[in-house]
Amino acid sequence: MSDRYASFVQTGAGRALVKRLGLPDPPRLRRHTPGDPLVPGPVLLGSSAGGRLAEPVGKILTAAGVTLPDPAASPDAGARFAALVYDATGISDSTELRQLYDFFHPHARALLPSGRVIVLGSPPAECDSPREATAQRALEGLTRSIGKEFGRGVTAQLVYVTPDGDAGTPVSLESTLRFLISGRSAYVSGQVIRVGTGTATAPADWDRPLDGQIVLVTGAARGIGAALARVLARDGARVVALDVPAVGDALAAVVNEIGGSAVQLDLTAPDAPTRLAEHLAGRHGRVDVVVHNAGITRDKTLGRMDADRWDSVIDVNLSSQERINDVLLERDLIPAGGRIVSVSSIAGIAGNRGQTNYATSKAGVIGLVDSLAPVLHERGISLNAVAPGFIETRLTARMPLMLREAGRRMNSMAQGGLPVDVAETIGWLAWPATGAASGNLVRVCGQSLLGA
Amino acid sequence: MSDRYASFVQTGAGRALVKRLGLPDPPRLRRHTPGDPLVPGPVLLGSSAGGRLAEPVGKILTAAGVTLPDPAASPDAGARFAALVYDATGISDSTELRQLYDFFHPHARALLPSGRVIVLGSPPAECDSPREATAQRALEGLTRSIGKEFGRGVTAQLVYVTPDGDAGTPVSLESTLRFLISGRSAYVSGQVIRVGTGTATAPADWDRPLDGQIVLVTGAARGIGAALARVLARDGARVVALDVPAVGDALAAVVNEIGGSAVQLDLTAPDAPTRLAEHLAGRHGRVDVVVHNAGITRDKTLGRMDADRWDSVIDVNLSSQERINDVLLERDLIPAGGRIVSVSSIAGIAGNRGQTNYATSKAGVIGLVDSLAPVLHERGISLNAVAPGFIETRLTARMPLMLREAGRRMNSMAQGGLPVDVAETIGWLAWPATGAASGNLVRVCGQSLLGA
Repeated sequence: MSDRYASFVQTGAGRALVKRLGLPDPPRLRRHTPGDPLVPGPVLLGSSAGGRLAEPVGKILTAAGVTLPDPAASPDAGARFAALVYDATGISDSTELRQLYDFFHPHARALLPSGRVIVLGSPPAECDSPREATAQRALEGLTRSIGKEFGRGVTAQLVYVTPDGDAGTPVSLESTLRFLISGRSAYVSGQVIRVGTGTATAPADWDRPLDGQIVLVTGAARGIGAALARVLARDGARVVALDVPAVGDALAAVVNEIGGSAVQLDLTAPDAPTRLAEHLAGRHGRVDVVVHNAGITRDKTLGRMDADRWDSVIDVNLSSQERINDVLLERDLIPAGGRIVSVSSIAGIAGNRGQTNYATSKAGVIGLVDSLAPVLHERGISLNAVAPGFIETRLTARMPLMLREAGRRMNSMAQGGLPVDVAETIGWLAWPATGAASGNLVRVCGQSLLGA
Repeated sequence: MSDRYASFVQTGAGRALVKRLGLPDPPRLRRHTPGDPLVPGPVLLGSSAGGRLAEPVGKILTAAGVTLPDPAASPDAGARFAALVYDATGISDSTELRQLYDFFHPHARALLPSGRVIVLGSPPAECDSPREATAQRALEGLTRSIGKEFGRGVTAQLVYVTPDGDAGTPVSLESTLRFLISGRSAYVSGQVIRVGTGTATAPADWDRPLDGQIVLVTGAARGIGAALARVLARDGARVVALDVPAVGDALAAVVNEIGGSAVQLDLTAPDAPTRLAEHLAGRHGRVDVVVHNAGITRDKTLGRMDADRWDSVIDVNLSSQERINDVLLERDLIPAGGRIVSVSSIAGIAGNRGQTNYATSKAGVIGLVDSLAPVLHERGISLNAVAPGFIETRLTARMPLMLREAGRRMNSMAQGGLPVDVAETIGWLAWPATGAASGNLVRVCGQSLLGA
């Protein structure tokens, strides 16, 4: 699980050698610790002419204690920023895209390590004209290129904010801004995130955004699932940790550490959904957040794959998510304001050699989110997916060396992510404050080159 | 422009060496030559229970002279197929995905070199239930994985066919099937193509699918543009080839070769759209097909990029397309049944280091197609985009060796594409028979690993 190359590079001698030989230079990423300030420096906030979001964003950041220098002041050559935030909602024609250049060009080298670039736009499908939709869609090319270009742990995202003018927007926008600008999103880059309308509630304490929430995590005994249980508990959740009986000891260790409760259950058993529903109803009366994290791989090329490998992967990774959702929703155990987060994979986006079964199941998870999110929206429940890229776990530790090194380096961070990076991202999507982000697929991949 | 490694590998000695050392093994791809049979062998056509497309597809293929063995017959261990075509429209739940395994597993190694895998489904957004939408979306994971796994020049695509039941569907489906199953789509793999409703007209001769069409090609003097002019003329079009005066000699050579007409015009001049419109109106009275191929790169990282590099790339690659469309449409020069095809790029999908300007312009092209296609649909005009990957041209020939080799090999074909591959794809989208495919973004990239 350890990336010894990255550790070496982060020493003084390692850094000098790497520079001389032109080797990949994985930076040490800024990650979240409770009590940290939101950002380690000032934030430069700019706006296109007529942008509608710079003002509310300025208020949100100022109230969060962030220093905002005047963007109109003549640029101080030595100034360094923790983030560049740009409101591009005023751009309604491709001829106005020049404003992006005018803002970013002078500050392209002014970001601190692990700095943030956040571009705010309007969803193209909700624009008034094809010209405006075209210009807003063009923003994606800019942010993805910046993510690949800036280096040093800098991330770049595009956030499309639905223009609804209702009073609820600032809360939803705040939760997404806080996630993206903080160390919680260390390994999330090159993403397009949609913030729409929906129930959102600001927390009493942004360091405990899940305070009092009942959260179910499947596959919680090890790896990403165990990191999830820890992060969600740290953020105030009461965690119900589920896994198969075979890993009961590991599950008990996680639960004892975080003060949660354990459920030993094989999700592929026919009565699993009803047994789970009865457990949640009897013990808590509800479940506020469901995280479908349980998943398996059974890799083989299709010609050599036996039917059991196909069936078990589809059943655990996809069909069981559908069965559990259906029973929990039928019994009204997920209240309005509830959250469901499903774990997909880059293999579900791009396909993968030797993983026809896994990629089919994980592409299905994307379909599940796309198709069920609008239905759940009417019940005040959000549904989102995350797609991890190369994450350092016992599974990736077992990969052949060259394949593992390629996976680790072929992304904008030049390193693999940690289970905690996936956990922080799922946590953000689970917050009551993040009601307005639904139907998203967010990759946690350090902007891996792989895609479709 | 020549891939000497691929040429070497395709010799007997080269092949033996490559196998021994485990090096990339780029196959010789089957490409289209007029008069060729549609496929070089029998096609296995299978269907999920209740599939609605196997019957019309069987009729189309039989009428085209294709041999279709009975899929229910016991598999002959030695049988080899030119294509595996599967109607998955009957799959309405993830538990029914097993049918995919049952069809493909026994035949995974039965494809001829440059064979074809085509999976037909229903667009998830038009499915009756989230369960069905989920299962249909899962098909994407299968086809993309097959594309990465099967090798030897085999391509794999997913075609979503709108269930409209109208009599027009078979023509549209036929044109897309013919393109995908033939050598015309040699370098197109891992794509998801949507065939909807729209005006479609079958040609008198499928070897001259553009017979009598007036086709404008911008940037036609060299590279992909010149290949486009040749392919479209070969398929029966009367080509109006446009480029800047500086390459007038090269443009004249192309036009003389194919018997088209030349227009020397700088598209960024303020009066260019009206001058072009007047030329087309005066000479032909209309333009049936517009191919926006003209494009430039001016690469620099954002911090080192001067404003002129930003402005010129946005203007040539994006804004000029918008201005020309607007004038041609205002003056009603593109009749019902007309086609517009815009050239985007993988950089517009995934972003690229040193190409903030180019990626922004090419992402904008995707936005243009997304937003304008529904508007044009009402006028009976289709609008689609293609995104070339690594194509062997004078531009890629100038790339540094290692970058060039990575671009050539990091795709399912283990080689770069040729300009003719992009041209054939644009040609298919321009056919009167392909009316029902609109709003698509089709990559011509050999299923490059790069994406978003």
